[in-house]
Amino acid sequence: MTKQWLAGIDVGGTTMKMAFFTEKGECVDKWEVPTNTEDEGIHIIDDIVDAIDEKLTKNNATRHDLIGVGLGAPGFIEVETGRIIEAVNVGWKDFPLTERLEAALEVPVAVDNDANIAALGERWLGAGDGAENVLFVTLGTGVGGGLISDRRIIHGESGFGGEIGHITAVTEGGAPCNCGKTGCLETISSATGIRRLGLEAVESGKTGMLSSTYEKEGDLTAKDVLDAAKAGDEAADEIVEYAMYHLGFALANLANAMNPNTIVIGGGVSKAGEFIIDRIRTHFQAYAIPKVGEDTNIRIATLGNDAGIVGGAWLASQRV
Amino acid sequence: MTKQWLAGIDVGGTTMKMAFFTEKGECVDKWEVPTNTEDEGIHIIDDIVDAIDEKLTKNNATRHDLIGVGLGAPGFIEVETGRIIEAVNVGWKDFPLTERLEAALEVPVAVDNDANIAALGERWLGAGDGAENVLFVTLGTGVGGGLISDRRIIHGESGFGGEIGHITAVTEGGAPCNCGKTGCLETISSATGIRRLGLEAVESGKTGMLSSTYEKEGDLTAKDVLDAAKAGDEAADEIVEYAMYHLGFALANLANAMNPNTIVIGGGVSKAGEFIIDRIRTHFQAYAIPKVGEDTNIRIATLGNDAGIVGGAWLASQRV
Repeated sequence: MTKQWLAGIDVGGTTMKMAFFTEKGECVDKWEVPTNTEDEGIHIIDDIVDAIDEKLTKNNATRHDLIGVGLGAPGFIEVETGRIIEAVNVGWKDFPLTERLEAALEVPVAVDNDANIAALGERWLGAGDGAENVLFVTLGTGVGGGLISDRRIIHGESGFGGEIGHITAVTEGGAPCNCGKTGCLETISSATGIRRLGLEAVESGKTGMLSSTYEKEGDLTAKDVLDAAKAGDEAADEIVEYAMYHLGFALANLANAMNPNTIVIGGGVSKAGEFIIDRIRTHFQAYAIPKVGEDTNIRIATLGNDAGIVGGAWLASQRV
Repeated sequence: MTKQWLAGIDVGGTTMKMAFFTEKGECVDKWEVPTNTEDEGIHIIDDIVDAIDEKLTKNNATRHDLIGVGLGAPGFIEVETGRIIEAVNVGWKDFPLTERLEAALEVPVAVDNDANIAALGERWLGAGDGAENVLFVTLGTGVGGGLISDRRIIHGESGFGGEIGHITAVTEGGAPCNCGKTGCLETISSATGIRRLGLEAVESGKTGMLSSTYEKEGDLTAKDVLDAAKAGDEAADEIVEYAMYHLGFALANLANAMNPNTIVIGGGVSKAGEFIIDRIRTHFQAYAIPKVGEDTNIRIATLGNDAGIVGGAWLASQRV
């Protein structure tokens, strides 16, 4: 009888997180190794194989005990073939990841991008709590996401599925976005957007905690704005309210079309917890179909940096 | 060797459309029978079985030549079990359709609601042209839809998937919608919405073709508004522009999240053809991620009333 473990791998620009899970989602072992981005990331395959073999041995197991490996990577990925079109931080360019890793490990391998893998992880063992239909949103440098319908990621025609950060929030006079448009949700509700709005408030001469922090530190972070809002600062509160209004509105319209069970909010900004969730909920319910507004759970992500390895393991279970 | 046909059935309140297709989508035979809504629709099962048996015999075939049956019905359906929660026009209430029809026909049966079945039909043999990721929108009494990702319908958690008519278009002071909210896309871009805007224009004293039609007919239809716009009437043109702006905007935001290959526009309003498609495209491209804007095809539906039987046949092919 083999152990039937699932391996989840989250490849980042500096470290690779790895773990073995049982099919029920119990973590058997969890560890990290550095990412060797030299020579266009060519050494990463051997590093993964060595790390897995070593940990298998340590756990009295062999490769036969692995059902499969699921791997998340940053960048643009052709999911059907497991080919990395480009992963700048890692060095891969037009790299046949699944093919190479399967040849080296002799175990089935599945890959997807890091946002989708994190969404799968939160759906399975995180705030999604096993629901079949989950929208996952990350509020970080940008606004990213992964949309899950019937437990499957919506990749879309060219892999742009889940790019909810580029939903247009402000139709005229919005801030420019990296995508080439203006007024994208990402320009408002991301950490970058909240910081931008904070700096604008200071520049426009608004007094209060934001301007005093700015005078002291010479800069302002999204966390400064969120903390000031929590502490009752008026200007900061307006910014957080504005950012969460646009997020709630965009999520309501997406939920009207997709009818998820749960919306999971992750990323740096989500650390503000119930303070932002309550606001998102209020605005969401104002614009959702009444039954959708009542039935959709909105929750803060719970897995943190482990979402990738958990989602990788789940993807591995589906590949077989 | 059996013939391997697929049967598609579109159950409406007055007639049931039926057809046999080959697996490649060639129509073998197509016919209609009246819908007997008496006694809560209990006779419909026998009527379907009789009609299918008769047409099989006529085509020198037997039930063994059928791979499966796919059926679309109006109303609320529990897709996994094939149970009709309620189909008011047909009379069914809490009716185990799949179970009953499978028992009577001894052939696998799949069911879904009429909008989703039409979406599957347009995706397979209509304007979707076989694409895997298609958004289908109907502009009729309301704004309905079916969202297809990876050739599968997005049903959502409670079957509300595809309810894009209730995306909020106007955040403040919008017209009341049947769903309980205000400002829904449906209140603007449906035939009902376009008619409403036309009547409002007449009431507000706008002169031109709309007011003269209203004086002559005592009423106004969406077609009157669309025809007047085509003929260059200014007030009508503003209404059509407004309706297509909101549709294009909503579809762009949905496409930013879902990255479809094709958006198919059906329903009565779609008969205005390129006149509205050009406008939808313009507004869509203004708010879509540039690559999504370039790559998404926007087309008028091509199957008309046959979308349901085609989609039913395709669903039948997937059930097995």
